[in-house]
Amino acid sequence: MRVTRACYSASLNGAIPQAKLKYVPTSGTYPQGFSASGVFVGVKPGNTSKPDLAIVTSDRPCAAAAVFTKNKFQAAPVTFSRRVLRERANTGLRSVVVNSGCANAVTGAGGLEDAANMARTTDQRVGSEDSTIVMSTGVIGQRLPIQKIVDHIPVAYHQAGNTHKHWMNCAKAICTTDTFPKLMSRTFSLPSSPGIEYRIAGMTKGAGMIAPNMATLLTILATDAPISPGIMPRVLKHAVDRSFNAITIDGDASTNDTVALLANGAAGGTEVSSEQSADYAAFQDLLTGFSADLAKYIVRDGEGATKFVTIRVVDSATEEGAREVARSIARSPLVKTALYGKDANWGRILCAAGYALITPPGQPENHVPEIVPERTNVSFVPADGSPELRLLVNGEPEQVDEERASEILEMEDLEIVVRLGTGDRSTVHWTCDFSHDYVTINGDYRT
Amino acid sequence: MRVTRACYSASLNGAIPQAKLKYVPTSGTYPQGFSASGVFVGVKPGNTSKPDLAIVTSDRPCAAAAVFTKNKFQAAPVTFSRRVLRERANTGLRSVVVNSGCANAVTGAGGLEDAANMARTTDQRVGSEDSTIVMSTGVIGQRLPIQKIVDHIPVAYHQAGNTHKHWMNCAKAICTTDTFPKLMSRTFSLPSSPGIEYRIAGMTKGAGMIAPNMATLLTILATDAPISPGIMPRVLKHAVDRSFNAITIDGDASTNDTVALLANGAAGGTEVSSEQSADYAAFQDLLTGFSADLAKYIVRDGEGATKFVTIRVVDSATEEGAREVARSIARSPLVKTALYGKDANWGRILCAAGYALITPPGQPENHVPEIVPERTNVSFVPADGSPELRLLVNGEPEQVDEERASEILEMEDLEIVVRLGTGDRSTVHWTCDFSHDYVTINGDYRT
Repeated sequence: MRVTRACYSASLNGAIPQAKLKYVPTSGTYPQGFSASGVFVGVKPGNTSKPDLAIVTSDRPCAAAAVFTKNKFQAAPVTFSRRVLRERANTGLRSVVVNSGCANAVTGAGGLEDAANMARTTDQRVGSEDSTIVMSTGVIGQRLPIQKIVDHIPVAYHQAGNTHKHWMNCAKAICTTDTFPKLMSRTFSLPSSPGIEYRIAGMTKGAGMIAPNMATLLTILATDAPISPGIMPRVLKHAVDRSFNAITIDGDASTNDTVALLANGAAGGTEVSSEQSADYAAFQDLLTGFSADLAKYIVRDGEGATKFVTIRVVDSATEEGAREVARSIARSPLVKTALYGKDANWGRILCAAGYALITPPGQPENHVPEIVPERTNVSFVPADGSPELRLLVNGEPEQVDEERASEILEMEDLEIVVRLGTGDRSTVHWTCDFSHDYVTINGDYRT
Repeated sequence: MRVTRACYSASLNGAIPQAKLKYVPTSGTYPQGFSASGVFVGVKPGNTSKPDLAIVTSDRPCAAAAVFTKNKFQAAPVTFSRRVLRERANTGLRSVVVNSGCANAVTGAGGLEDAANMARTTDQRVGSEDSTIVMSTGVIGQRLPIQKIVDHIPVAYHQAGNTHKHWMNCAKAICTTDTFPKLMSRTFSLPSSPGIEYRIAGMTKGAGMIAPNMATLLTILATDAPISPGIMPRVLKHAVDRSFNAITIDGDASTNDTVALLANGAAGGTEVSSEQSADYAAFQDLLTGFSADLAKYIVRDGEGATKFVTIRVVDSATEEGAREVARSIARSPLVKTALYGKDANWGRILCAAGYALITPPGQPENHVPEIVPERTNVSFVPADGSPELRLLVNGEPEQVDEERASEILEMEDLEIVVRLGTGDRSTVHWTCDFSHDYVTINGDYRT
């Protein structure tokens, strides 16, 4: 079956929408020892110009970790990369190779061989065995045009470099329906080596879709800070839970979702190896904030999205509970369509909170310590810094100034704060609205 | 805050859409000893003619049970009715009183007093204390116009009768945005008394919305069969889990969802009291099938729906797992928009199945015995009885006849069969698609 949906086709054929230009950097400072490239292969027959093969590679071995989709139908590159990281014990990695245009998912043993072939070809150029992480995104249920891809890997390797242009090409090559490339870089220091400037670069793609449901979320993070392999999985998981797992429907992981972090230590300094160290805390904060900013770009590029909505759930008895409440609100089609319609419908927000933690049908009712109706508060926090608008106070509806509500909802950015009043745990989640365009984009006939 | 959305307004002002007329019965056989009525009160200021107060009452005490929403923000009538049934130990109930136009939800102690007032007023007319179940549906966060309502309860009681017209008025009075009243009646017999004709009548409302998320799902079931109070909760739960809990987003229970069953024994015969009896099995099957048919009407009236989709998940290691897989597919916006777009996108179906049973973000990965990729099969079963179209066979994509796929997807009704190949448990779930109209209806500015 040929599933060649517009939805999975490369859309970055040059023109970035005017409104999104502000999210695309024109320069950057990139981590030492890494080089990147994005080249055109033509993985999808319809793609005649967009780069669709990306490589990020380090001139020395890296500590590496990755967070993969939990979806039970895992694509071949996920199976392959998971194994490489396990066998290498998060050490000695050199490269990430990515193709867009075909997800290499539901492709059986042949698909797994294709993923291994991509890695092997990259390893040969780099001169290091079993050192490549593979990612794919695009059409599901189709085999890769593997010969074309492996033929181009040497080209991509040859063209790799460490300028802004190299990284930008790379960021473009991993995109599918994204309307803009999502690339960021930042410098930082660590307490133990205040004189050293460390760098981190990251790129992500989410397809146009805010809920990484079927659309693949891929992220590559690279830093020249010296992070020990042993702490890489934990520091990455901490960051991902508060960034890529905090945008809308996290549970809706695709078959290919992968976030990988490489640290090559090229900038020198003392290795960060203890979770109790000040360096660890500093790097964890840096990585979490950096990842969250990248993740927000995915929300900004939500299919058909007209709003960027921050959902903050605070004063919860548990953090897990707060997260489920935020996710439930972010996922509710009724909340999302109300936001699209600029409707201050707190009832829908309350309802989504009220069923966030209940048992599935057929199972006995459960106690939910996080939610006590008469302690629940819901407010809108305007993006312009003006005072919040209270909608529900201690379970009692407020007399709402409708004119003020309309003003707040006219703005592109909105924050919804839900105060549960049952504890001191909190979470933040980002989502967008649900528009006619979402239905048009996803309900479109395959082309 | 005045939440006077078009979405919650009475829409049954006479005209039933031509395409829905076939779902509205023109006659019926109703259970002995019950009478019903629907009268106009004007609960919502904008409602000037649609009946919005309903009573179903029995001339003798009934065994009764109800299944309520699990939402943690429970409306006053839910709290009240739950207590009545517990205090009466499922026995001695006489009436159900319902208003539409206002949900009496998030209304505090005053709201609870209003619900009690509705029950007390009904009890007084019936001449029996603590014998009334109360239901409300409509706007959230507003107090009922309680005086108007209690003033009209005697009128509703006075007008109650047992003709088709009486029941139809009653079914209309519980509606909100439903485009047609949902009323059914059936006759049946039980093995121990083959000569007795028993009757069951039922009505439901789902608002126009297929996913009973914020829109309230209310159902009243009444039978003249003699069912003992002790078995009522279990037989009703069995039926609800396979009917009203098997339509799309069950977890998305509103603040008011209630399904109540009353059995007055007026037709005589031996009381059904043992769960091991043949009568119990027969009644359970009857009630489950009857409830499923009523529940399907709600799906047929889905907001903006253009398709009626049956999702059958079979050969599962567990029934709970099968249900979650079906629910996940039914809930996926990507599956629903693909169905709207008549797109045979099995990848989205597979993806929704693949994340149905995984742990939330931040929690360790779990083993899911229900899903083994290489044993998974997905097919479309055409509504016209022609052979199924295989999309995925043992985890391998089929070469699909696209023309045939288009033909199948042109039909209003569609069945998706997912064979998991991991056991012998199964489930069935009903849902509809996600259209532009859904966004229009729910994204509309409040009026």
